[in-house]
Amino acid sequence: MSRALRGATYPRGFRAGGVACGLKRSGRPDLAVLLSQQPAEAAGVFTTNTLKAAPVLLGEEILRRNPSGIRGVLTVSGVANAMTGPEGIEDNRRVLLGAEQCFGLPADALLPACTGVIGPRLPVETVLSGLVPLREATGAGRSCERAAAHAILTTDTRAKQVALSGRLADGTRVRVGGMAKGSGMIAPRLGPPHATTLGYLTTDARVHAPALARMLADGVERSFNMVSVDGDTSTNDTVYLLANGRAGGPYADADPALRALMVTALESLARQVARDGEGATKLLTVTVRGARNLADARSAARAVVGSTLVKAAVFGADPNVGRIACALGYSGARLDPERIDVSLRTAHQAVPLIVEGRPAAGLDNGGGKRVRELLRRLDEVPLEIALHEGRAAATAWGCDLSYSYVQINAAYHT
Amino acid sequence: MSRALRGATYPRGFRAGGVACGLKRSGRPDLAVLLSQQPAEAAGVFTTNTLKAAPVLLGEEILRRNPSGIRGVLTVSGVANAMTGPEGIEDNRRVLLGAEQCFGLPADALLPACTGVIGPRLPVETVLSGLVPLREATGAGRSCERAAAHAILTTDTRAKQVALSGRLADGTRVRVGGMAKGSGMIAPRLGPPHATTLGYLTTDARVHAPALARMLADGVERSFNMVSVDGDTSTNDTVYLLANGRAGGPYADADPALRALMVTALESLARQVARDGEGATKLLTVTVRGARNLADARSAARAVVGSTLVKAAVFGADPNVGRIACALGYSGARLDPERIDVSLRTAHQAVPLIVEGRPAAGLDNGGGKRVRELLRRLDEVPLEIALHEGRAAATAWGCDLSYSYVQINAAYHT
Repeated sequence: MSRALRGATYPRGFRAGGVACGLKRSGRPDLAVLLSQQPAEAAGVFTTNTLKAAPVLLGEEILRRNPSGIRGVLTVSGVANAMTGPEGIEDNRRVLLGAEQCFGLPADALLPACTGVIGPRLPVETVLSGLVPLREATGAGRSCERAAAHAILTTDTRAKQVALSGRLADGTRVRVGGMAKGSGMIAPRLGPPHATTLGYLTTDARVHAPALARMLADGVERSFNMVSVDGDTSTNDTVYLLANGRAGGPYADADPALRALMVTALESLARQVARDGEGATKLLTVTVRGARNLADARSAARAVVGSTLVKAAVFGADPNVGRIACALGYSGARLDPERIDVSLRTAHQAVPLIVEGRPAAGLDNGGGKRVRELLRRLDEVPLEIALHEGRAAATAWGCDLSYSYVQINAAYHT
Repeated sequence: MSRALRGATYPRGFRAGGVACGLKRSGRPDLAVLLSQQPAEAAGVFTTNTLKAAPVLLGEEILRRNPSGIRGVLTVSGVANAMTGPEGIEDNRRVLLGAEQCFGLPADALLPACTGVIGPRLPVETVLSGLVPLREATGAGRSCERAAAHAILTTDTRAKQVALSGRLADGTRVRVGGMAKGSGMIAPRLGPPHATTLGYLTTDARVHAPALARMLADGVERSFNMVSVDGDTSTNDTVYLLANGRAGGPYADADPALRALMVTALESLARQVARDGEGATKLLTVTVRGARNLADARSAARAVVGSTLVKAAVFGADPNVGRIACALGYSGARLDPERIDVSLRTAHQAVPLIVEGRPAAGLDNGGGKRVRELLRRLDEVPLEIALHEGRAAATAWGCDLSYSYVQINAAYHT
C-alpha cells in the first residue's frame, strides 16, 4: 500500500528536516538531515566510479566501523565534494562532527552524502552555520520530511518520496519509507558496498546490518542500477538503508515480504528519478522479456533506455522503431534479429511496433499516424520487448532527450 | 602530403560517380559508385551490432568469396536496408547484379553499402532506374568524385574526403584516397571482418587481400572506432579498402610507410565524421597519455568524448572540469584520482584544467573567464589528459551536444 505525501519518516522512530544554509546561490534549501530516534542497523551502496567523492569514501568507512549504531544521514546539496582529495574527507568529517555534537549524537552516528558541482571544496563554515537552524527544523511531521526531501535536490524539479507498509511472515506490521534525488549525471552503477543519485530508505523492521546489505544490493540492482538519464555515472551516487527495529518482532533478516517491500520502494524512487531526468518531458519504461538470462535482460533494457537516438525519437513522438532494434543489436544481449517483438503497452492497449524483427505494418516508412499521436499523448512511454531466447526479464527506466536537457547542461555550472 | 579536393579517385585507376535516383525525398543524390578499372584486392570491416543490415551480411559474403577480384562499391543512401531479413539480402543482390550488368562487370565484382532509415525495404526498381544515369555520370575527374562523395551522405552537412601520397620502402610512389559519410548513429565498433559510418579507402599500392585486411583492422581501431557522436552503434557501419596495384612494384604487404599512410587517411576521415556530427558546433579531440595500456588509453579517451555532460558543457563553453574527471572515473581505465592532469592544448598554448586531480586554479568555482572565452572561440576543443600510469596513448574524436542535435533527431524520420 502506498501512502501519498509520506516518505522516509513514515516508519516509526524517524525524523527529518531541511534548511537553506547558503550553499545554493538560488537560496533554496541545501542541508538536510534524516534521523532515527534509536541506533539503526545500516547498509550502503556507493558509486563504482573510480573517482569516488569524499562523502562516498567516508560513508563506506563509517559503515564498516559502525554498521549497527547509525543514527542518520546528513546531506549537503550544491557541492559534490569530489576532486577534493584528503582535504575533502577532512572537510566532511568536520561537518559530520559538528552535526553529531549539535544533535547530541555519538561519533560515527551520521552518514554523509553530498551532491552538486564537482571540484569546489566543501564550505565547512557555511554548513556548520546551518546546523542549529536544521536542528530546530527537524521533526517527524509531514512538512519536516518534505523540507528534507526538497533540501537534497539539485536540478530536480520535484521531491521524490515513497511510503509503504506490509505484514511480515511472523505477522509483524512494518513500514518502509524513502526519499531520493537525481536528475542529471544519472546512470548509477552501484556495487555492493557502491549513484549523483542519492536515495535513503528507512524501515522500522528489525534486521541485522549484513542482511540489510544483501537486501539493498539486490534491490538496487533492479531499481537504481536500471535508470539512465544521460549515461554518466556520478562520483557521488549513494543509497543508504536504515532499519531501527521499532516495529519489534523477531529479526526479519530473510523475510520475503520485507524484501519485496524494499524492492517496491526502491523501484518507486528509481522511476521518480527517471521521470524527473533533466529536461525530461516523458518517462521511458523498457521491459525486456524472454532473455537468455538476467544479465542479457538487463543489458538489453539498459541499451534501449540509454540510446540517445531512441530518447530523441521519444521526445519527437516519432515511431522510429529501427532505433530500438539498433540499440538491442549493440546491447550485447544474445538475440535472433528475426525473432524480436516490440510493442507499446499502455494500461489500455498493446500497439505492435516490431513484429518478428520487422517494423509493424504501417511503421516501415515513417507512417503510423496513430502511433505518433499516441506517443505524443503519453506521459509515460512503456516499451515491451520480447526476445524469445529464454525466460529472464528486466525493466529499465529513463526519459526523453529534449532541448531543455541541452540548455540545463550547457549552462548548469555557470 | 594532403591534396585538397581530391579523394577516393586520387589513386590511379579509380573512377566514381553519384546521382539522384529518387530515394531521398529532398531530391539529393542518393546513389553512388566507386570503381577500379582493374580487379582490386579488397578488405572490409563491418559493424559488430547483432542486427547487421543486409548490405553488411552480403558484403561480408562477397569478400569471403572474391577478395581479389573486387571492382568497386555501390552505395545506396536514404534506406539502411536493415530489419529487412532475407528479403533485404535478396533486394540488395538484385541491385548489385543490375549494377554489375550495367557497368559490364562480372558477378561478385561490386561490394554493397546502404545508409539511411532502418526498417523500410530497399526500393529495388527505383535504384535500378538510376543505374544508367549513374554510369553516364561516372569518371575519374574531381567533379565525378565530389558527386559520389555527396551521394553517400545522409544528415551530413559536408562531404568527407582524403588524398595522400608517399614513397614505399622499395621506392614505389603510391597514392591513398578515400571518402566517408557519418553524422548520426555514430559510435562505430568495427571488428575484423566488422560502422552508419561508411568509409571507402582506395590505393594504387600492390597488396594482397589478407595483408589489406590486417592494415584496415589496425587502422580502424585507431580511427573510426575512436569516434563517437551519440554512442549508438549502427546496423550498417562499413569500411572498405581497395588496392588495385596500379602503382606497380613488389607487393607491399608489410610496408610500414603504406601502413602509416592508411592510418593517416583513416584518421583524417574519422575526424571529418566527428566534426560533422549531427548538430555539432565544435570538434572535440581527446588525447589520453600515460595509460597503463592501450585498452585503458582507448576507454579513457572514448569515455570523455562520449560523455553527454562533457559534450553539453563544450557546447556551452563551460569549463566544468568535474565532468571530465567524472567520465575518466567511470571509463574503467586504471587511474589514481590524485594524479590526473588535464589541459586544453591548442597550437598556441596549453591551459591547465585539472592539476593532480584538482580543478586548476580559478576553475573550482565556475570561474575561469579566460578559459570560457577560449572555449567559445575554439572550433576544435583539444583536451589532453595525462594519467601517469604507464606509456600508452590514444586519441578519440567527438563533438558537442547542441539544440540542433535534438531537433535533427526528434524529427529525422518524419
